[in-house]
Amino acid sequence: MLVVQKYGGTSVGTPERIREVAKRAAETHDAGHQVAVVVSAMSGETNRLLALAKQVTDRPDERESDVLVSTGEQVTVALLAMTLKSMGYPSFSMLGHQIEIETDSAFGRARIQRINAERILSGLRQGNIVVVAGFQGVDAQDNITTLGRGGSDTTAVAIAAALKADACEIYTDVDGVYSADPRICPNARKLSRISYDEMLELASLGAKVLQIRSVEFAKRYQVPVHVRSSFSREEGTWLVHEEPSMEEVTVSGVTSDLDQAKITILHVPDRPGLAAKVFGPIAEANIVVDMIIQNASADGSTDLTFTVPKGDAAKALASVKALLPELGAQGVTHDVDVAKVSIVGLGMRSHAGVAARMFQLLAREGINILMISTSEIKISVVIDAKYTELAVRVLHDAFVTPPK
Amino acid sequence: MLVVQKYGGTSVGTPERIREVAKRAAETHDAGHQVAVVVSAMSGETNRLLALAKQVTDRPDERESDVLVSTGEQVTVALLAMTLKSMGYPSFSMLGHQIEIETDSAFGRARIQRINAERILSGLRQGNIVVVAGFQGVDAQDNITTLGRGGSDTTAVAIAAALKADACEIYTDVDGVYSADPRICPNARKLSRISYDEMLELASLGAKVLQIRSVEFAKRYQVPVHVRSSFSREEGTWLVHEEPSMEEVTVSGVTSDLDQAKITILHVPDRPGLAAKVFGPIAEANIVVDMIIQNASADGSTDLTFTVPKGDAAKALASVKALLPELGAQGVTHDVDVAKVSIVGLGMRSHAGVAARMFQLLAREGINILMISTSEIKISVVIDAKYTELAVRVLHDAFVTPPK
Repeated sequence: MLVVQKYGGTSVGTPERIREVAKRAAETHDAGHQVAVVVSAMSGETNRLLALAKQVTDRPDERESDVLVSTGEQVTVALLAMTLKSMGYPSFSMLGHQIEIETDSAFGRARIQRINAERILSGLRQGNIVVVAGFQGVDAQDNITTLGRGGSDTTAVAIAAALKADACEIYTDVDGVYSADPRICPNARKLSRISYDEMLELASLGAKVLQIRSVEFAKRYQVPVHVRSSFSREEGTWLVHEEPSMEEVTVSGVTSDLDQAKITILHVPDRPGLAAKVFGPIAEANIVVDMIIQNASADGSTDLTFTVPKGDAAKALASVKALLPELGAQGVTHDVDVAKVSIVGLGMRSHAGVAARMFQLLAREGINILMISTSEIKISVVIDAKYTELAVRVLHDAFVTPPK
Repeated sequence: MLVVQKYGGTSVGTPERIREVAKRAAETHDAGHQVAVVVSAMSGETNRLLALAKQVTDRPDERESDVLVSTGEQVTVALLAMTLKSMGYPSFSMLGHQIEIETDSAFGRARIQRINAERILSGLRQGNIVVVAGFQGVDAQDNITTLGRGGSDTTAVAIAAALKADACEIYTDVDGVYSADPRICPNARKLSRISYDEMLELASLGAKVLQIRSVEFAKRYQVPVHVRSSFSREEGTWLVHEEPSMEEVTVSGVTSDLDQAKITILHVPDRPGLAAKVFGPIAEANIVVDMIIQNASADGSTDLTFTVPKGDAAKALASVKALLPELGAQGVTHDVDVAKVSIVGLGMRSHAGVAARMFQLLAREGINILMISTSEIKISVVIDAKYTELAVRVLHDAFVTPPK
């Protein structure tokens, strides 16, 4: 088998931890597999480097920031490869530009466009454990780029796709993907398998296990991803292509996201182009709008409500306030004490009445629903933040099949 | 003018220092010059990285060590380029592989073979201050290499040669090259100019201002090097091609080197191949032998004396002891309390009797000469270490013309 293993910052946070990672990779190699290892910067290192940048300038240039922070992964790959060699395992490190992980030129949030698998493959064929720097690439002009926080997941999945690996193992400090956050919901259980689409919804809804872009990549190239713990040998959760049996489970997981702020523009005359007028400036300010709801009333005016990440609320609010005269709106209100709770499952497509049951369950607990948004395999509601844990537990216990 | 400036680890040791370097480069740019800046790792950084390596393995792989330590310069170039940009100066950083500083594959002590000046030149032409990582290159297989300690000097001179720069300014914490160490010799004076050949002798004799390889490079490509202080605007010392007037000065400088150990093999039968037998194993142990003296006596036996760096004395001694039976020697003695004192000057070639006068001056002070070695423009003697300062002062006051 050809296996790609990815270890995050905590797993390589100290020289001792790096030796543990080396042992694990060596074990896999000893079992007769070809092994490529993707690693992140040692935990804390990226922040240390960014702090250095902040000491020379308030607005660090984006190109140079990438030159700076990409050293974090470079340090880790060198240390890991030399550890493996000292243990007697042939090994060498590879950086983004050496592999040719070609990306676009969006510094700090670049997207992988092409990977040259040749040098890694030839290294593996010669018996090496090849150690790959996560998070980094080069653009067409040979500038160093980085993929944004959590980008090492994407590197691992993209490398696995390019190598046509049999498995892409993502090692984390949790032992898999859970049907809900176990800290909120004692009945939460580890999912042995989950479809890419479900994982996409879970990742974007606040389950912090995998970077969402890496899941998109895994889905597109059908990479078999295995999320598992670096502290145990137990199987974790496999991300797989959808299978018929998966539809039998209505809901795979329940998630909550407290990083939500709700903004409502009151009583706007409902004219064509209203949404564009409101959301154009917000997008230009690089604020990601999540849910949008518009209710037209009989008098030709409407209330427009949307959610943004809490940290962007003030900026979004200011942008809206500046527009009020032009919009002819009555005013604007906002609420940062809200949460989004969602249920996700392939089975929703064929099981009718899931939404109705969800609303009933929440109503029975006296939880008021402020916004609703649905997709084919997901239903999200925005509620008062204080009910978050209660809502998750109620929905999980009602929808998710208990462990066998 | 096209100017290459090089700043060492102390000059870029903190964010504040980096801002000072940025100001100095910007000033030069404002004066209408094209400026490329070569920088080292922040002081202490290379040692920090090597200490990390030592925590994972006792014998770090050389290729991976270079991947590791080259991050030091990468951090500095990013910080300096972003500082310059924040001050409103167009600037970008370049790493060894981006420039194409091609070296051989001798990791940790690589030699530059070829530099592609094109990208730097086009950056300069567009008005940028181009910031170049010192100390690093890539070999023909795209592996990262480093040039060894002090290698940033060599990078600067090599870049200056490739760009056909009008000046290569080496900024240090001293304000130039002195006729002797001012801490030993109060009469020492700053040399305004010195020939490459003299500087080569001075560099190899322990004057720590410039890495010797950078001087060789400067000589070969006739790069006008200007050694000066990063703390003042005063002119420092120019390294120049030899000029007739230089011969008028007999001695340019006096140096001392305490990092010397003397080893003597006593009473060896003098047979052909003796030296090869002794120095073969020592060279294989990577020990650099400095002076060698052999005195044949009438009875067909000889005493063989040589010097090595103090840190290698024990290893060299062990190597010699193992050979004693085979050599048929009487025994071996050693002495680590010795120093090498040298006088250097182009004028020696035409001034007779310099050596004799040197020996007289030392004899008058009661200083016994243990070994003598001469080149065309240098005379070195090994003496008892305790007389080092006295010898330097006596020779300096007698030979070096006092400042006008």
